[in-house]
Amino acid sequence: MASWLRREDFVAARRRVADAVHRTPLLRFRTLGRSNGARPWLKCENLQKTGSFKVRGALNSIASLSRRERARGVITISAGNHAQAVAWAAGRAGARAVVVMPEGAARSKVEAAIGYGAEVVLHGNAAEAFQEARRRADEEGLVFLHPFDTAPVIAGHGSTGLEVGEDIPGEAVIVVPVGGGGQIAGIAGALAATGRLTGPGRVRVVGVEPEGAPGMRRSLDEGRAATLDGTDTIADGLAPPMAGELNYRYVAEFAEDVVLVSDAEILSAMRLLLTRAKLVAEPSGAAAAAAVMYGRVRVTAGETVVVLVSGGNVDDGLIVRALREGAPWP
Amino acid sequence: MASWLRREDFVAARRRVADAVHRTPLLRFRTLGRSNGARPWLKCENLQKTGSFKVRGALNSIASLSRRERARGVITISAGNHAQAVAWAAGRAGARAVVVMPEGAARSKVEAAIGYGAEVVLHGNAAEAFQEARRRADEEGLVFLHPFDTAPVIAGHGSTGLEVGEDIPGEAVIVVPVGGGGQIAGIAGALAATGRLTGPGRVRVVGVEPEGAPGMRRSLDEGRAATLDGTDTIADGLAPPMAGELNYRYVAEFAEDVVLVSDAEILSAMRLLLTRAKLVAEPSGAAAAAAVMYGRVRVTAGETVVVLVSGGNVDDGLIVRALREGAPWP
Repeated sequence: MASWLRREDFVAARRRVADAVHRTPLLRFRTLGRSNGARPWLKCENLQKTGSFKVRGALNSIASLSRRERARGVITISAGNHAQAVAWAAGRAGARAVVVMPEGAARSKVEAAIGYGAEVVLHGNAAEAFQEARRRADEEGLVFLHPFDTAPVIAGHGSTGLEVGEDIPGEAVIVVPVGGGGQIAGIAGALAATGRLTGPGRVRVVGVEPEGAPGMRRSLDEGRAATLDGTDTIADGLAPPMAGELNYRYVAEFAEDVVLVSDAEILSAMRLLLTRAKLVAEPSGAAAAAAVMYGRVRVTAGETVVVLVSGGNVDDGLIVRALREGAPWP
Repeated sequence: MASWLRREDFVAARRRVADAVHRTPLLRFRTLGRSNGARPWLKCENLQKTGSFKVRGALNSIASLSRRERARGVITISAGNHAQAVAWAAGRAGARAVVVMPEGAARSKVEAAIGYGAEVVLHGNAAEAFQEARRRADEEGLVFLHPFDTAPVIAGHGSTGLEVGEDIPGEAVIVVPVGGGGQIAGIAGALAATGRLTGPGRVRVVGVEPEGAPGMRRSLDEGRAATLDGTDTIADGLAPPMAGELNYRYVAEFAEDVVLVSDAEILSAMRLLLTRAKLVAEPSGAAAAAAVMYGRVRVTAGETVVVLVSGGNVDDGLIVRALREGAPWP
């Protein structure tokens, strides 16, 4: 069984990443409370360095390597945001970074990873890219950085939980998009470790997955980390072919629920964020907003709701599509 | 001659508006420093209540009315942002608000003003709408709120200057879009009144206008507030038919310069803000970023640059146009 990360682990990770990442703003967004009477806030990780929350885990992962490991260089697999984050974090540490990305990866994400200095390899679908990254790690002696399922990743992402915990001292529900589960594991784990999941000022953590990539939902239903036969969603950042095993344990222990949203609902949330919050969110980054918009998350009137806008890296065409196809709300 | 607003006037105005407006985030935006070596920040008034800085002046204007005046109701003229701001601020004060908007006003802005509770009258072009608002004020006994050229407006917008002055304690250049000039007058006036335009930690204030609506630039050249025969720019918020007389005096006294940008440069800046800063800016809100991108503002390497992103209220079609037509940069 997992021995959970402790408060001091999360605090130490936060200290390692705090100078390099933004303490992203938490913005009031009343529009999202119109139908449910909630008090909604947006935690804007789309305004984070490299455009997503992923730098928190990547920085902490690379900081956790030995000097010898950093000298070997690192390799990872990513649909895009983790690729950019590792490229950027490795660049800061003076380490070589190789990133395997699925052939269908968003063009802007591929270009950005190259821009941050990574060597990018395009290979197959997400599952095949995973295997290719493992293979090259062995062949080339590179350190494989798992994109979501390690303690350093969870501890790094926990810094978001500590920030929200400080900014929101009272009761709240925090709604977090779930791909492999690193972000929700970090946030829920950090809030658990700092005593915020019980007692007065209790915080609930709810995960959100696309209907077309319900790895964590299925894991909870089956009682173990599930692997999906395939995924089908516009939320590229939420479509790894499996839930992380370690992350699954954190979610099962510390999250209240994981709910699902459709791609159409995600497009509508992207549209709402663009037109009313003036924020560009990628589909993955809009999933939590979609879950609140469409009533997937149980929210009571007057309750504080924190919506994780986890990233903003999106090809232009998808912004246009959200404006054209996203349903106005309500 | 003007007797300038004093520090205590600005502090009092800020106190009146502070509870109702957001202290908007100041975000690092390194991309804008790539070619000039500057340290750029974005002051995000696009994330302000009603989507633009205009609430600051509107709230202070309505707070400055007598109870009897508020009971009569107010009328104003606006291409859109001031309309929304007055509608919202009047709603808070329980006052009737009539807004005259040019017939070509952005659809989203008209709808938003109605949504905030204003009675909207569409009338002619900007100059004709001004006259119509004055006429209806007399006819219906409404209090005419000038959209930019009064001391309460300047004092209200000064709150942005006080915020930036606190957030940036040292030397900097602040780049501000100029329509009628209320925002730049408030920011420059507040920085002057707090001793920030001279000595160590000196701040320079530079205005930006569209080439197609250079009212303040022409006023400086002619030595008096100028009226334009017509305007032609996508930056609807920067296209009033004249510079404010009071504002002109503040700009002549306290601003370093007013520079011009083209509509194409504004589209390119909108694109950069969307794709790299993950922010939706309207054309007026992107003008200051355009001036820095295209070297219109003298900036030295290492210098702190604060770019006012003054608003984010924009029709969907213009977002699409910025993505399609905005030139990538650099």
